[in-house]
Amino acid sequence: MLACALCATSLWAQQALFGGSEIVSPEVNADGTVTFRLYAPKAVKVEVTGDFLPQVKVKTPMGEAEQPGVAQLKEDKDGVWTYTSAPLAPELYYYTFKVDGMTYLDPSNVYMCRDIATYTNIFIVEKSEGDTGDLYSVNDVPHGNVSKVWYDSPTLKMKRRMTVYTPAGYDKGGRYPVLYLLHGAGGDEDAWTTLGRAAQIMDNLIAAGKVKPMIVVMPNGNPNCEAAPGEWSKGMYKPSFMGHMTSKPAASMEESFPDIVKYVEKNYRVQKGKKNRAICGLSMGGGHSFSISKLYPDMFDYVGLFSAAIFMGGGRDNSQSALDRMNNDAEFNKQMADLFGARPKLYWIAIGKTDFLYQSNADYRKYLDSKGYPYEYVETEGGHIWRNWRVYLTEFSQKLFK
Amino acid sequence: MLACALCATSLWAQQALFGGSEIVSPEVNADGTVTFRLYAPKAVKVEVTGDFLPQVKVKTPMGEAEQPGVAQLKEDKDGVWTYTSAPLAPELYYYTFKVDGMTYLDPSNVYMCRDIATYTNIFIVEKSEGDTGDLYSVNDVPHGNVSKVWYDSPTLKMKRRMTVYTPAGYDKGGRYPVLYLLHGAGGDEDAWTTLGRAAQIMDNLIAAGKVKPMIVVMPNGNPNCEAAPGEWSKGMYKPSFMGHMTSKPAASMEESFPDIVKYVEKNYRVQKGKKNRAICGLSMGGGHSFSISKLYPDMFDYVGLFSAAIFMGGGRDNSQSALDRMNNDAEFNKQMADLFGARPKLYWIAIGKTDFLYQSNADYRKYLDSKGYPYEYVETEGGHIWRNWRVYLTEFSQKLFK
Repeated sequence: MLACALCATSLWAQQALFGGSEIVSPEVNADGTVTFRLYAPKAVKVEVTGDFLPQVKVKTPMGEAEQPGVAQLKEDKDGVWTYTSAPLAPELYYYTFKVDGMTYLDPSNVYMCRDIATYTNIFIVEKSEGDTGDLYSVNDVPHGNVSKVWYDSPTLKMKRRMTVYTPAGYDKGGRYPVLYLLHGAGGDEDAWTTLGRAAQIMDNLIAAGKVKPMIVVMPNGNPNCEAAPGEWSKGMYKPSFMGHMTSKPAASMEESFPDIVKYVEKNYRVQKGKKNRAICGLSMGGGHSFSISKLYPDMFDYVGLFSAAIFMGGGRDNSQSALDRMNNDAEFNKQMADLFGARPKLYWIAIGKTDFLYQSNADYRKYLDSKGYPYEYVETEGGHIWRNWRVYLTEFSQKLFK
Repeated sequence: MLACALCATSLWAQQALFGGSEIVSPEVNADGTVTFRLYAPKAVKVEVTGDFLPQVKVKTPMGEAEQPGVAQLKEDKDGVWTYTSAPLAPELYYYTFKVDGMTYLDPSNVYMCRDIATYTNIFIVEKSEGDTGDLYSVNDVPHGNVSKVWYDSPTLKMKRRMTVYTPAGYDKGGRYPVLYLLHGAGGDEDAWTTLGRAAQIMDNLIAAGKVKPMIVVMPNGNPNCEAAPGEWSKGMYKPSFMGHMTSKPAASMEESFPDIVKYVEKNYRVQKGKKNRAICGLSMGGGHSFSISKLYPDMFDYVGLFSAAIFMGGGRDNSQSALDRMNNDAEFNKQMADLFGARPKLYWIAIGKTDFLYQSNADYRKYLDSKGYPYEYVETEGGHIWRNWRVYLTEFSQKLFK
């Protein structure tokens, strides 16, 4: 009867029930190439750009830099523009179209992610079971639950929102270790489950027996925000990279962190104690992981710094080398001695070769080396990008609680 | 140091940290008008369309129909196109731009919703506390948690995903009644918390003391899908209105419904029994509410049919009136007698005057009247649209568990 009713004349007047076009885009072909299609009969020029294309060097007001390349689509007689890529390695990629110069989301692809204030479409290329693309896909494995949870932060004097992943089987009972997974500047408690594919990575690695079932807590790292844009009473404001710094918080993220641990350990069935807690994060969240772990040396046995924005102490006195600044900062040295005196099981640093934070991380490793503080170091290709952070989570999570 | 690092030359090469433009759009002005802006210096024609504009009559292959109007933006010397609307009533509205004929999402507005396969931008107009727009906003009130939960459905032979809202204070203890809230055809377990603003409506009405704190369970109503598009192992497929009907499920949504109730009552602190359970839904979900309530007459004391697609029994024999078909269907009459024999506290029907399901709902009410089965009826303006369904949830939820 429903199908019948939908044929009624008056359907046209109802909510847009049939949306999008019949175009298939993107289409991941068997050989790993990907075909993009856009219906744009009036357009003069249609391009596609994204991280599936080789980087190109461009001149900017700040000097030479790299950005994703641009490919031209060709129009057929029906007004459908098409481009097929080279074979792509297994990965999650992003892209957008440009139609006569204007950035355009693919109307045939409902899968997109927001990075601060910018949406891009996404697609995944897989080759075989266990490859990078496969790890980011939703596979036929048991799935954990993902919850948006409001907790009380007395330190920040507000209720705050965080994302909590509980592994498949959590509802059957048992106690679990906890990974605290922190986002970067401009991000929020949604970032790791959207751009970061954290739930898929954990589901797949747990199902493969490579990661111990664990709770993953993804808080909001902006201490003057209750929640992601649009999810608290500030209204539907436009997010920005520095937006969360516009008002002074009651305390720092680091100072407020025990509120989160306290809430989690009260409201979830966790295994307690240092050996059952890990913390890691990307960029600003790597900086948070760095600071929080040394502020509370007995809290975490596993610390991961992903492309970390590390505030190394010693201020910005450029007359000294970074190593001298660190060595001359008494409080910093005391904290670091306490942290490594508590013998964390893993202190893990990862960064891409072209990351703009590469040098500061290299300086920090120099300090760790000079003190003989043990750490593991992973250096990858690429820069300050989500592609790296997903790989780092994949690597780091396999080393935890074992 | 972070801010400093961001000034580095190499920043340009990193992930797009600064996205979108500096344009503010949409801007809700103090007088209730709304200004839309788009930077499009090369465009010849820029339009905006959406439900904030008066409906216009158009000719379609199926006859005359109504659709949202279109307004022209005007270009200034800097390539910024602008349109300011008439004053708007408090409401959540959707819109998209058209640039030289192509539908275009507003790059200045990160707030959007997916309706099946189509994204539109959204905005909210508020006038004062408690108005419709205010009810849909995230206000400074305690917030419930929203979780994506995987439950076992032995009847459908799969694990399935649902959305569960637990009210603010749930983590403090206590037992709560449960509202089962069902989506329409083409929708999924995400629809009520995105297009339907269910979490905001519940947060605001509970905070105002107008709704009893309750758990709201929003399952997936497509019995051959595990989850929303992209959230199960079928990959990043394009959702469609009839897509979920392409393969035959192991059982119907109605038959599998007790699996959901069983999971919820085992895993949440609920008040059990008929008087603590309500079911409602829109369109197909209204049809599910209709069928499930008569299949299990002892399960729900509150039933809400929102623009319901009701399969009334008696087949499609057009030689009889709808009322005669219902009267001549023995099984239907038996089920209806059982349902109303169990004396539900509320049987609530709502529909818009121009809804394409209006007549079938009128026929169904004729049957209820002829039998003397008590129900409440609400008739609104408009058709088969989310605007109505949000209003119906607002009305219906205030009548529950009192």
